[in-house]
Amino acid sequence: MKWHFDDFIYGSIDGAVTTFAIVAGVVGAGLSPGIILILGFANLFADGFSMAAANFQASKARNEFIQMKRKQEEWEIDNLEDQEKEEIRDIYRKKGFKDELLEEIVRIITSRRKVWVDTMMKEELGLIEDEKKPVDSSVSTFVGFNVIGVIPLIPFIMFFSFDLNLGSDAFLYSTISVAIAFFVVGMIKAKIVKKSKIRSGIYTLIIGGIAATVAYMVGYGLNFLV
Amino acid sequence: MKWHFDDFIYGSIDGAVTTFAIVAGVVGAGLSPGIILILGFANLFADGFSMAAANFQASKARNEFIQMKRKQEEWEIDNLEDQEKEEIRDIYRKKGFKDELLEEIVRIITSRRKVWVDTMMKEELGLIEDEKKPVDSSVSTFVGFNVIGVIPLIPFIMFFSFDLNLGSDAFLYSTISVAIAFFVVGMIKAKIVKKSKIRSGIYTLIIGGIAATVAYMVGYGLNFLV
Repeated sequence: MKWHFDDFIYGSIDGAVTTFAIVAGVVGAGLSPGIILILGFANLFADGFSMAAANFQASKARNEFIQMKRKQEEWEIDNLEDQEKEEIRDIYRKKGFKDELLEEIVRIITSRRKVWVDTMMKEELGLIEDEKKPVDSSVSTFVGFNVIGVIPLIPFIMFFSFDLNLGSDAFLYSTISVAIAFFVVGMIKAKIVKKSKIRSGIYTLIIGGIAATVAYMVGYGLNFLV
Repeated sequence: MKWHFDDFIYGSIDGAVTTFAIVAGVVGAGLSPGIILILGFANLFADGFSMAAANFQASKARNEFIQMKRKQEEWEIDNLEDQEKEEIRDIYRKKGFKDELLEEIVRIITSRRKVWVDTMMKEELGLIEDEKKPVDSSVSTFVGFNVIGVIPLIPFIMFFSFDLNLGSDAFLYSTISVAIAFFVVGMIKAKIVKKSKIRSGIYTLIIGGIAATVAYMVGYGLNFLV
């Protein structure tokens, strides 16, 4: 498979945010830390799966939509030749061509089926084909979601597995490690979209922080329910 | 603001899947139903917010990336005129033009700055500007996430608020109502991407069902932790 780093990064941000929101919600409500592991892992597998599936379906739908439009344009070229020639004429008229030169351009573009269809796709419909395989996008998303999303759970896993004396420090370690993860992932994301790394790191940190604070407050506010 | 129905639908699927996964995880682990409301609402606000923020950032980054590329092309046209003319020549050579006609096309396209830049954006870079405002996309996502995501919680809210004798039936009502929501939302989504409605409804139902089953199994498997 071909690895898609951008999907990995989008998955990883969502994984870290949602898992840490569960951590913060449980701690805010003063519930047993075991619930963090139960619902944290349920989120990693269930939400990671659904996000990957949504990504798969969206990429597949986009590819199919583009193919459908291409077929439709091909049909129109075969069956409504004059009308489609007129559309090419319009497109190039708007670019500033006219008279004999315009007719010559229309003649040449419409003499090659692929160039003709490509021109209609790009200029009339604004569609550009991309060659991403849906399954590659979704696997990259799922792996990112789980690999980075598990980070806020690690202190709690250690707390349970090795009976380490982390005590309530587990939440502190979880917060620190996920804050670092937010910042680093935000910086890597900036590299993909070619933006300021520090600013993107801080931005991702703030989004994750707000989400966790909201979850903590909901947990704290509703703890009378248990 | 301008309403974006596609973002609403994507948000609503994610909201229903993740909230119902929490319901299933809590029930699977045999935890107190109050935890469903605590973490359900924490998820609605926190995850809904982070998804809307991610959507905002992605749309903004895409718009900025396209603007940056446009500025870059404009700079190149001003400073590396010959090289950019040669690129237009290459693009139209590949479409099948040659000799004098090719030169005439290059002359006309490069005589209008906007047409020249548009051609480079579409043909060289494969970029097409879209006019979605990031804030509209993200508000639509958040509203969809919360309006549909709250559905699996409603039976539990009633259970608590009105002291109705739903008993363990709350999970059954939650499952039925969210299953209907998955199916309907999947069908509406099919309308947007112009695919078979029944198939898309069933597909979304299956994805949500698998995610909830996974969450239930993780909850059931890890219930020794509390």
